[in-house]
Amino acid sequence: MTNTLYLPELREMLAEGNAAELHEFCEALHPARTAEFMEGLTAAEAWQVLQHTDPANQVEIFRYFELPRQVEMFETVAREEMAKFISGLPADERVDILSEVQPEIVQALLPLIPVDERRDIMRLAAYPEGTAGAMMTTRFARLSESETAAQALDHVRRQADLLETVYYLYVVDEDDHLRGLVSLRQLVLTDPEVLVRDIMRRDAISVDVTAHQELVAQKFAKFDFLALPVVDAEHHLLGIVTHDDAIDVVVEEATEDAQRIGGVNPLSAGYIDTKLFELAWKRGVWLMILFFGALLTAFALKRYEHSIDEVAWLVLFLPLIISSGGNTGSQSATLIITALSTGDITLRDWWRVVKREIATGLILGSFLGAIGYVVATTIGAMMGTGAPSPRHAVVIPITLVLVVICGTLSGSMLPLLFRRLGLDPAIMSNPFVSCICDIVGIVIYMQVALFWLH
Amino acid sequence: MTNTLYLPELREMLAEGNAAELHEFCEALHPARTAEFMEGLTAAEAWQVLQHTDPANQVEIFRYFELPRQVEMFETVAREEMAKFISGLPADERVDILSEVQPEIVQALLPLIPVDERRDIMRLAAYPEGTAGAMMTTRFARLSESETAAQALDHVRRQADLLETVYYLYVVDEDDHLRGLVSLRQLVLTDPEVLVRDIMRRDAISVDVTAHQELVAQKFAKFDFLALPVVDAEHHLLGIVTHDDAIDVVVEEATEDAQRIGGVNPLSAGYIDTKLFELAWKRGVWLMILFFGALLTAFALKRYEHSIDEVAWLVLFLPLIISSGGNTGSQSATLIITALSTGDITLRDWWRVVKREIATGLILGSFLGAIGYVVATTIGAMMGTGAPSPRHAVVIPITLVLVVICGTLSGSMLPLLFRRLGLDPAIMSNPFVSCICDIVGIVIYMQVALFWLH
Repeated sequence: MTNTLYLPELREMLAEGNAAELHEFCEALHPARTAEFMEGLTAAEAWQVLQHTDPANQVEIFRYFELPRQVEMFETVAREEMAKFISGLPADERVDILSEVQPEIVQALLPLIPVDERRDIMRLAAYPEGTAGAMMTTRFARLSESETAAQALDHVRRQADLLETVYYLYVVDEDDHLRGLVSLRQLVLTDPEVLVRDIMRRDAISVDVTAHQELVAQKFAKFDFLALPVVDAEHHLLGIVTHDDAIDVVVEEATEDAQRIGGVNPLSAGYIDTKLFELAWKRGVWLMILFFGALLTAFALKRYEHSIDEVAWLVLFLPLIISSGGNTGSQSATLIITALSTGDITLRDWWRVVKREIATGLILGSFLGAIGYVVATTIGAMMGTGAPSPRHAVVIPITLVLVVICGTLSGSMLPLLFRRLGLDPAIMSNPFVSCICDIVGIVIYMQVALFWLH
Repeated sequence: MTNTLYLPELREMLAEGNAAELHEFCEALHPARTAEFMEGLTAAEAWQVLQHTDPANQVEIFRYFELPRQVEMFETVAREEMAKFISGLPADERVDILSEVQPEIVQALLPLIPVDERRDIMRLAAYPEGTAGAMMTTRFARLSESETAAQALDHVRRQADLLETVYYLYVVDEDDHLRGLVSLRQLVLTDPEVLVRDIMRRDAISVDVTAHQELVAQKFAKFDFLALPVVDAEHHLLGIVTHDDAIDVVVEEATEDAQRIGGVNPLSAGYIDTKLFELAWKRGVWLMILFFGALLTAFALKRYEHSIDEVAWLVLFLPLIISSGGNTGSQSATLIITALSTGDITLRDWWRVVKREIATGLILGSFLGAIGYVVATTIGAMMGTGAPSPRHAVVIPITLVLVVICGTLSGSMLPLLFRRLGLDPAIMSNPFVSCICDIVGIVIYMQVALFWLH
């Protein structure tokens, strides 16, 4: 939701060219808040406001703008100014922004950027979206084993402006292989003459540059890191991922998972910021696929039209039975998807999952079946003619047990299957599982009825 | 999944009393890994292994055990040993563990703990689960405005062992009001004679001690903090929440939300570690409620039995129509729940949400209605006698538009209503919404049919 509280005042200050107040506005608040209050301005106005503070604070505020706004500013501000501004941005963030900016503008900008920074941008841009490589920054401190703590501290002091974090410092050998890690805490607390070699942790946990961002987030959640080093196959240190990027990924992955589970293509912006037709499109695609899936239920029912004509009460319990299958299936799918994304189970556990889900399905199915039998016979009595007799009503519990097991199995196996195929296990699992349970549920119900009633 | 790779070796070392190798095992790996390899041991064996390393490392390894294992160790190890061990644990974590330990054991333990630590434990334990107060630690560095950077650094050096983080240091006045924040980075980089007053950030963003943990997590995600100060209503500094706890909360909340959306009571442990009957119970409760909800469909159908007898083709499209409502409803519920939990919308946006969802419902309903009409008439032709005529088939698109709007509205309003009532908006929203759409869908379908066909 756009914050418009300060908008009139800001516009007035700009109109009056009130430099003192604009400066005050840029410096008085936390940069995140300053950015929030600027949301309602145009990109050009926002850039004008930013001119009233020093470059470091400009970058801080800019970092808290939403991505579309950042891209807009890259596309509207004069190229020479932007090229200068770019140098101040964290390496991973500027690559993210440039990947969204129109290619012509990027082509025009790049020659204006110093050559080693340009090379850095090109290298990071080469890693695919969603990998550790695309999340990492190259601005981290490299130490050598033979430095003393005092030298290392001095080293950090001199480079601090260029570093994204000074709290973890990585130790490399002459070929840039990752050897260990020293924290600023250690450097500050230790005797200045001690060698880095003697205080560094040698068991630095790292992540491969091609690893999926979900794995990076899992490592952060598990090991409580401030930063995680990123290495290539030969264990060369390429960059680091910092904790703030990790928490963003955790939130992003969780939201995407939830949306996929609910049968929506993940939104790139928030709910309110997404355009109505984009929203309808991201939902409509899956709804249409599910609609065609559900059409199969019409064919299934057509096939059993005679049974339905003969035994009218079967129709009454149809929605009840297929929704029981769908609900159990949704539960299983949700449990498996969350267990996969927190790393609680892996593909190799599939056989254990099958056994658990069959057992759970038996328990839940028998339970619902018992209630269903009681309900069917009492309702039968209430409804009078055409209702199931106690003997006929046995169709209900038998069907429920089978349908519920079908739900637990399809709900648990589909996400594992999707993961196995290299897809996201959460892709519209719940509605998809419901759809399978609807169709299979009808077939089971009618077959059980045919078998039992004849 | 329990890691049993080293289990035989560990048991052998214990049996032989091989102190050197046990020491090596405790020190060689990252504590998280060491803890992982110890999962298969009994609590008593694990405690024995821990005796082969120094107290600081004992705590490090212990922190990575799962909560039930930690509680078990508190309950089995000799009280005097445990009372000593407790002092090394972070303040927030030991309170979490003690809240799970049997009350008699806690009562026996507390008198053995030094009085000021005991007071600290009692105070933290008073904050309800799920609030900032329950997440915070009291081991943080307090500075005063009139210190120099050198004094502050010295201050931190002396206390470092007692502090949970040394990277953010909080500045308070003589009454312990939060005045500002200084980072270790600033202290290390600045001139040693500069006063804390002159380098501190005054806009330190804080959180109220009674705030919900979801809000704490949102602030971390938004502001990229390493730690967040916790204050009371008078802005006294009470403690800090550190980034590692925030990431745990983000993961926990996301998993709980997903499980609630899927109609499962949140599990306290992972999927594989949860006992089968507990799992069945946490699912069975909601399944039973939904089952009784779905029973209403039987009554609804009973009411319209005559229409169904008269117009046989109505049954064929029944599952298709109710599942379209349910799917759209699940989509809306998911979108609103994720938007609420990321702070993208608040309760005050409800009217905007209503307008958006009606508009989306109209678009999606018309779209599915158009497909539905084509499908109903073509299937009609394929099915021969008893199928809908082109004029009669108009029932399908009219119903679909209404049912889909019913889905978008109930799916979006229910989570907002739950939040308004102080409940978790995610409580079994998807199956609940499906259930409503099933019943309302049948009524709409039959009423439209009655109206149009007569």
